[in-house]
Amino acid sequence: MDGFYSGKGCYRLRFLPEQAGVRYHVYGCVEAEGSFSVEPAEPDSHGIVRTAGTRFVFADGRDYHPFGTTVYALFHQSEALFEETIDTLVQTPFNKLRACLFPKYYDFNHDDPPLYPFAQNADGSWNVHRPYFAFWDRLETNMLRLSSLGIQTDLILFHSYDRWGFSTMSPEEDCVYLDYLLRRLSAFPSVWWSLGNEYDLCKKSISHWEQLEEYIADHDPYRHPLSCHNALRLWDHSRPNISHVSIQSKALWRVNAWRQQYRKPVIIDEFGYEGNFPHAWGCLSAKELVSRFWRCCTTGAYGSHGETFYDGKSEIIWWSHGGKLHGESVPRIAFLKEIIESLPGHLEGIDTPPEMLYKVPQNQRAEVYKTLGELQTLARALWPLSDEEASFYIDSEITYQGRVGDKAFLNYYDIRCSAWDTLRLPSDKHYHVELIDTWNMTRQTVLENASGNVDVALPCREYMAVLALESEK
Amino acid sequence: MDGFYSGKGCYRLRFLPEQAGVRYHVYGCVEAEGSFSVEPAEPDSHGIVRTAGTRFVFADGRDYHPFGTTVYALFHQSEALFEETIDTLVQTPFNKLRACLFPKYYDFNHDDPPLYPFAQNADGSWNVHRPYFAFWDRLETNMLRLSSLGIQTDLILFHSYDRWGFSTMSPEEDCVYLDYLLRRLSAFPSVWWSLGNEYDLCKKSISHWEQLEEYIADHDPYRHPLSCHNALRLWDHSRPNISHVSIQSKALWRVNAWRQQYRKPVIIDEFGYEGNFPHAWGCLSAKELVSRFWRCCTTGAYGSHGETFYDGKSEIIWWSHGGKLHGESVPRIAFLKEIIESLPGHLEGIDTPPEMLYKVPQNQRAEVYKTLGELQTLARALWPLSDEEASFYIDSEITYQGRVGDKAFLNYYDIRCSAWDTLRLPSDKHYHVELIDTWNMTRQTVLENASGNVDVALPCREYMAVLALESEK
Repeated sequence: MDGFYSGKGCYRLRFLPEQAGVRYHVYGCVEAEGSFSVEPAEPDSHGIVRTAGTRFVFADGRDYHPFGTTVYALFHQSEALFEETIDTLVQTPFNKLRACLFPKYYDFNHDDPPLYPFAQNADGSWNVHRPYFAFWDRLETNMLRLSSLGIQTDLILFHSYDRWGFSTMSPEEDCVYLDYLLRRLSAFPSVWWSLGNEYDLCKKSISHWEQLEEYIADHDPYRHPLSCHNALRLWDHSRPNISHVSIQSKALWRVNAWRQQYRKPVIIDEFGYEGNFPHAWGCLSAKELVSRFWRCCTTGAYGSHGETFYDGKSEIIWWSHGGKLHGESVPRIAFLKEIIESLPGHLEGIDTPPEMLYKVPQNQRAEVYKTLGELQTLARALWPLSDEEASFYIDSEITYQGRVGDKAFLNYYDIRCSAWDTLRLPSDKHYHVELIDTWNMTRQTVLENASGNVDVALPCREYMAVLALESEK
Repeated sequence: MDGFYSGKGCYRLRFLPEQAGVRYHVYGCVEAEGSFSVEPAEPDSHGIVRTAGTRFVFADGRDYHPFGTTVYALFHQSEALFEETIDTLVQTPFNKLRACLFPKYYDFNHDDPPLYPFAQNADGSWNVHRPYFAFWDRLETNMLRLSSLGIQTDLILFHSYDRWGFSTMSPEEDCVYLDYLLRRLSAFPSVWWSLGNEYDLCKKSISHWEQLEEYIADHDPYRHPLSCHNALRLWDHSRPNISHVSIQSKALWRVNAWRQQYRKPVIIDEFGYEGNFPHAWGCLSAKELVSRFWRCCTTGAYGSHGETFYDGKSEIIWWSHGGKLHGESVPRIAFLKEIIESLPGHLEGIDTPPEMLYKVPQNQRAEVYKTLGELQTLARALWPLSDEEASFYIDSEITYQGRVGDKAFLNYYDIRCSAWDTLRLPSDKHYHVELIDTWNMTRQTVLENASGNVDVALPCREYMAVLALESEK
């Protein structure tokens, strides 16, 4: 492990033991030597979050389902506001928080931050070789406070909302910054690296970004989650260093396809915020925001919360500064989280019939066609389509369904106001079927011992879900 | 004009004079001869609807804005039910109705119709050379009833929901049928030809469809509106015989692009129905249905209504049979229609900034970039995208805005719950600005003499619109 200078003549070296019982020896240029043994983790400490297929798991094997929020400039606020934010977070279900290391310059964000990460050169440029220790000390204190609430810090390392010059440093300067960051923060179990926020709005070339991604992967000894979040063009999430798919998009009909394409966990880290801003991305009703969470989660992905209410007076907005929450989505997100955590495994999205049919390879279609029954008409119309035509049709006809093997089936009805639906359950198993009102947060048993094709009565209003759980026999 | 046999020894010849004052002579094989002069039309008779650019106009030059509904099997119901449907229609804003000439076989539609259009051969196949006159007489009577209410019949000539064999006749049989149809019905000013409903679900080849389209165009002396409605793949609406774009799609973010692409009027003739069916297409809330109308109309296109409520008892469903309406969308569609009809001209959708920027030709981008100001960041991220990436981004970031030159600007906010918006009006003109609550059907003046960039307060809830009309000076 490489150490770092933390000011006042003090050099530090941090490490994160991932096994109990191992003995470590410390020695080196700073004239310190010693040894100690590693005890088992406290029950509440689960270690670093890593990925397993399209799921997240803690180092100790426990499932981790990210339900994040967004406070971009959290680490650049007054102590009092940070404390108020913590008081708010305690009452939320959030277990991940996206925040920038560098200060943010944008609407409602025009002030200089209390502290900068580096000292300045005589010409006003940043001297990345001279970290400003008070900044880093405070960042760590803040991150540990989040961690004590069970919140992973999804730390945004670069972004474009900048007037101080942090977004336009050279690749060499960027790497000096990352070197210090990784030496200081890698031993924190609860940190994630979000390489860029809206990376494609920055004035960096793709090769510059790739160099930074490589640098982090090479210098983080613990392989913390590493992702890169887009504005317009998705990052290439298939790159081996990338642990999971972090996306900004409102096109939630694509979520299941992304999960299948990348075979990594998918988080839609930005699909719009609950609020009243004039911007299309910042004026969603709580109902719409909660629905976006359900659309993602039903198909085995995750979402991130954000809130943008302006009351005409206070310019403290949750999405950047923290403080208090004013919306109505948070209890509903908690309700969803509880359901997702209670499932007997990880949900995988179920393809709609058009998705399923279009995936049949050309040379098998004639054979498959004979077996399709009612679906023959759809296949006949679908198969001649070009990929572009097919995806246009498929995307606009999406419904939201997921399953945990044969153990659980979840249908989310979104804006559909149906009076009934027919579930198609395995006929050799029995299910307990619940009607879930995702907005009013009620769960009601509607069928016991359901099997095969069964009709479920629905209440003709939006935002309903049906969960079928295999009954224990 | 070609005549037709209408039974009981009677041959008829119909024509539709489109100018007053002209003298016509009638003579021919049926031993009839005579002449008469053509008087000017009654004030309520406006003639055939035709197109002018992306607008519809009656033959007398009056604007026609289609606000249609859908009663697929209207012409195959009992007299009593037809009368009940007429009683309902009188109270609606609808001025177009989609209905099939052939009977329909589908969920809730399993009965044989009272009458068939042709006599049967000994083997049970249809003898298209022997029209069943009672069917055609009744069809005409029904269409004239609709016409008397100012309703255009958008007559669907072929569809796939069939168990009687009408969808699988030979091209020759189809043309014999069309020949009789065109001789009988072309002189009705209020008929439109919808070549196929979900044409691509039928077992007809594209060349078969094209042959039918040509046949109609060649044999309809009056050029009634002619379109073809899809299930999955859009018909090629750029074909010269096609008068307007008739589309089934939920992808309403594409509407403005279609209007621009085809330079013809666009009607989204199927974007889902208000109702409580389990099918995703038949369970929209009234709010969602009304919103789909606004999304289409704001960008200069039109929508079509349909209703699918099943109460668990009566299998009379508006979308197929007619009868009574049970939903809440109709008064709101009437409210929208009144606004659209009151505008000083035809709306044209306004491109969003990403749409606008992406259209800048490659070789002009360097020059344009310098002039972009705040939009430079977006251009930098957008311009490197492939067409597929760009349209993915653009489609999912759509907002709904239209204008009538500089005379009127309409913003529809859909699900946006903003507290305010900034209108960017021409600074050399003055506008009267109204806030429209599209659901509660209220209009409220919020600014007078507005000019240039002005903020408008919005009430933080969905389904609002703002209309700026140039003030008279």
